[in-house]
Amino acid sequence: MPSNIHPVFDKSLGRGSKEESLGQRGMVIWFTGLSGSGKSTLAIDLENRLHNEGLVTMMLDGDNVRTGLNANLGFTEEDRTENIRRIAEVAKLFVSAGVVTLCSFVSPTKDIRHLAKSIVGEEDFHEVYVNASFEKCAERDVKGLYKKALNGEIKGFTGLDSPFEAPTDPFLEIDTENNSPEESGTKLFEVFFPLVRKK
Amino acid sequence: MPSNIHPVFDKSLGRGSKEESLGQRGMVIWFTGLSGSGKSTLAIDLENRLHNEGLVTMMLDGDNVRTGLNANLGFTEEDRTENIRRIAEVAKLFVSAGVVTLCSFVSPTKDIRHLAKSIVGEEDFHEVYVNASFEKCAERDVKGLYKKALNGEIKGFTGLDSPFEAPTDPFLEIDTENNSPEESGTKLFEVFFPLVRKK
Repeated sequence: MPSNIHPVFDKSLGRGSKEESLGQRGMVIWFTGLSGSGKSTLAIDLENRLHNEGLVTMMLDGDNVRTGLNANLGFTEEDRTENIRRIAEVAKLFVSAGVVTLCSFVSPTKDIRHLAKSIVGEEDFHEVYVNASFEKCAERDVKGLYKKALNGEIKGFTGLDSPFEAPTDPFLEIDTENNSPEESGTKLFEVFFPLVRKK
Repeated sequence: MPSNIHPVFDKSLGRGSKEESLGQRGMVIWFTGLSGSGKSTLAIDLENRLHNEGLVTMMLDGDNVRTGLNANLGFTEEDRTENIRRIAEVAKLFVSAGVVTLCSFVSPTKDIRHLAKSIVGEEDFHEVYVNASFEKCAERDVKGLYKKALNGEIKGFTGLDSPFEAPTDPFLEIDTENNSPEESGTKLFEVFFPLVRKK
């Protein structure tokens, strides 16, 4: 090491120091489920609740990822995998900064969720299965996608002509078909708040 | 909107609320300069100083980006551009969470830095030119890269057979050839701390 570089300057700030300072534990909360199942609604709600408790959060979803980092990816199987790979790597970076990172993506297959989990690391990855039936999601049709898909205007639509493999052992399952958003939001908060806060 | 989705849940948390809560302004501080100029040393030092003031920071550098998010990129011109594009997009995500994001990358050309700036947004992008001569950096040779490059073992080495286009109008220039790390670190902190803190 050259004499003009002082060793103390090279001490990179670790995740532990950041978590300590923030009074929280960084982690990924990964919402998976059909389009319209309520993933983003619940993630946004949880983010708001945690924020109100003074916790530092980040939300990753199609809106901010597909328009930026992953704007150069399409919807081939290869690109879908790369999409999730990048998201998981970014989520891992946020976790290294001590941030509670909420990811809301259909992520329909066990393989793709396993990829995300293996990148983030098992101890930091919390899978939340947002469960509502295809029929219920099609009935809600928040984005009008189900109508199009059922009319044959979208190919490879998850739950129709592309499989959704339900998680068999999620960290948490939220049934949005039989519970109100308020009930589901409360449950999520009650599960994650104690895990996240360090103070 | 279906009756079981309550509108208040769809209010996504904005950057402003996050900055308010953190008492800081999110921004990118982008360190550019030759290999061995002291970019990462100074970025780590600044991160430590800001952290000690209770601010929330993130450091992006080759160590955490090339091994993860950009592990599937090589060193062709196309890949170098994609490398910086992704980094800038990730930095932008951190800024949207209110985080002070320090990026330490050679980023040798005006075009590549312009790309980063255009992605992050001009008002959030602060270019710090870490200036030391090629000779000085070669003399330090912290990573042993200059020896290899001068022996012809590395092709396209910045400053040797690949150009470094010095910033003509950086937000801040730090001369690490004629100032000690302590002096440079103090200057950086004095410039950025008032810009970053909101309280």
